[in-house]
Amino acid sequence: MISVLTGGGGGAKFIQGLVACFKDPESVAAIVNTGDDLDLHGLRISPDIDSVTYYLADKINFKTGWGIADETFFAMGALEALGGESWFSLGDKDLGTHLYRTQRLLQGATLSQVTNEIAHRLGITAKILPMTDNAVSTMLKVDLDSFEHIGLTGSEIGFQHYFVKYRCMPKVLSIRFLNADTAQASEAVLRSIEESELIILGPSNPFLSLDPILSIAAIKDLIQENKHKVLAISPIVGGKALKGPLSKLLLELGKKSDVLSVAEYLKDLASYLVIDEADVSHSDLIASMGYDLLVTNTVMKNKDDAMQLAQFILDRVFK
Amino acid sequence: MISVLTGGGGGAKFIQGLVACFKDPESVAAIVNTGDDLDLHGLRISPDIDSVTYYLADKINFKTGWGIADETFFAMGALEALGGESWFSLGDKDLGTHLYRTQRLLQGATLSQVTNEIAHRLGITAKILPMTDNAVSTMLKVDLDSFEHIGLTGSEIGFQHYFVKYRCMPKVLSIRFLNADTAQASEAVLRSIEESELIILGPSNPFLSLDPILSIAAIKDLIQENKHKVLAISPIVGGKALKGPLSKLLLELGKKSDVLSVAEYLKDLASYLVIDEADVSHSDLIASMGYDLLVTNTVMKNKDDAMQLAQFILDRVFK
Repeated sequence: MISVLTGGGGGAKFIQGLVACFKDPESVAAIVNTGDDLDLHGLRISPDIDSVTYYLADKINFKTGWGIADETFFAMGALEALGGESWFSLGDKDLGTHLYRTQRLLQGATLSQVTNEIAHRLGITAKILPMTDNAVSTMLKVDLDSFEHIGLTGSEIGFQHYFVKYRCMPKVLSIRFLNADTAQASEAVLRSIEESELIILGPSNPFLSLDPILSIAAIKDLIQENKHKVLAISPIVGGKALKGPLSKLLLELGKKSDVLSVAEYLKDLASYLVIDEADVSHSDLIASMGYDLLVTNTVMKNKDDAMQLAQFILDRVFK
Repeated sequence: MISVLTGGGGGAKFIQGLVACFKDPESVAAIVNTGDDLDLHGLRISPDIDSVTYYLADKINFKTGWGIADETFFAMGALEALGGESWFSLGDKDLGTHLYRTQRLLQGATLSQVTNEIAHRLGITAKILPMTDNAVSTMLKVDLDSFEHIGLTGSEIGFQHYFVKYRCMPKVLSIRFLNADTAQASEAVLRSIEESELIILGPSNPFLSLDPILSIAAIKDLIQENKHKVLAISPIVGGKALKGPLSKLLLELGKKSDVLSVAEYLKDLASYLVIDEADVSHSDLIASMGYDLLVTNTVMKNKDDAMQLAQFILDRVFK
């Protein structure tokens, strides 16, 4: 059994590669961030769960890393024509997922159940586990001065407003996870971590994709207890994030945009760290933090790259 | 000022024709049934309002009388593939309307406001007035024995379950309008009726399209007070409803499927009755009920037919 903590983007891509390494993908569990879930137009949207699901169902729009390939946007076009909020783009087929999820949640199903139903229907045998069935929301306190031109009022915004609506432009002062203190980790998540021979922190943004999951105390405690079997994959390659706001965020939070910052941030959680060949010059410093270091190509341009990265990790950890 | 009470189908089609008779369509108000509104997948759907809106925006699928022309159904297809409830078919562009409505209602707007916003955006100058901003639901008590094969439990079902999901198959025992006793007619509806020189009961099903509107006491009282300026258009042509369950319903409720049953049912509300040439043999009996009778072709195969019917009524009433 292998568990992977992940958000969208790189983490989801990696899981697709990892699952492809197994004849029996049931032994892989994705533990997915739900901190960037949102309610929009009356629908519940779980972008990170959907990314993992679409990757594993081979439906993903690989170019963007979200949504379904060959998608149409007729509903969005009509909504926009009416003057509705259309900043969060929802494809027509993708809407089918949100309609299904919302209906089932209204019927009393949990997010875990709905996620499992969707995965099952799409022929996915790997487990996709929302970190919690409760509502936890990633909230960003941002510097108003840095984006007054956007016309935003209030200094705390939800993840999708930060990420999609304002395209990560506002300077981030701090991040918190609303309701994390009362949220329960799902039983399946805790069992999966306990039973895993290897727990992987995916190459996802530590602040925005991993921290929401770790904001649930029971999960963080269990990860730390099992640190000896935890492996992290650096999302930084050659001093930069390949995608998303991680580099900018590191600087705004007073850190350097390099693999050392990531290594420092994760050192109480993971005993293995996978870094890219481009960052090999930092090997000695990282090793001195106590990590068992693995160096390889971590850039995943396609599914084969992801599979090679996963196979490399499996070979090295289970040699 | 002319007000038309209407549901979907024939009534909506007639309004398109009526509006086309005016240079200044602002003087036409559609007072629309909301008893068949439904909440599905977290979205608020107002089928009769949308039919009137799409007719007046020249977007209607004329063949079906509901939904948007040249529509795609990708969201429904995806929902169906997930095993979701897909019996109520929602086109992709049509979904844009429901997303907009739901979002605005969640923001605190009334149904009247949202309806007005949508009409305005689509360039409609006629008024589209929901009968109420409160939730009134048409509920049908049905004979379980008549449709046991459907696997339905419970003997009372909502309008859309009766109409769409079970295609009007169950035998109807009685109809009621949930919450009609506490619902408030919208101010605009009452004002519109008061200020109108002519109030038309559209060629809609009296039991399922007109009665829900009239179930709000303030509206029914006002219609009755103004009976002298109320004109009804028979939805029965040659002893049958052109579309929908009206004929079957008349029989199930112990009446005959003919224009006389309609005339009898509406005689306390309207002083004019428009019947089709096919039913001219009933003229004397209808006149003896006190109606001022108008006979013409009432079948609307296209927009021109609807316009001719409307112009005929205007010419005869305002001669």
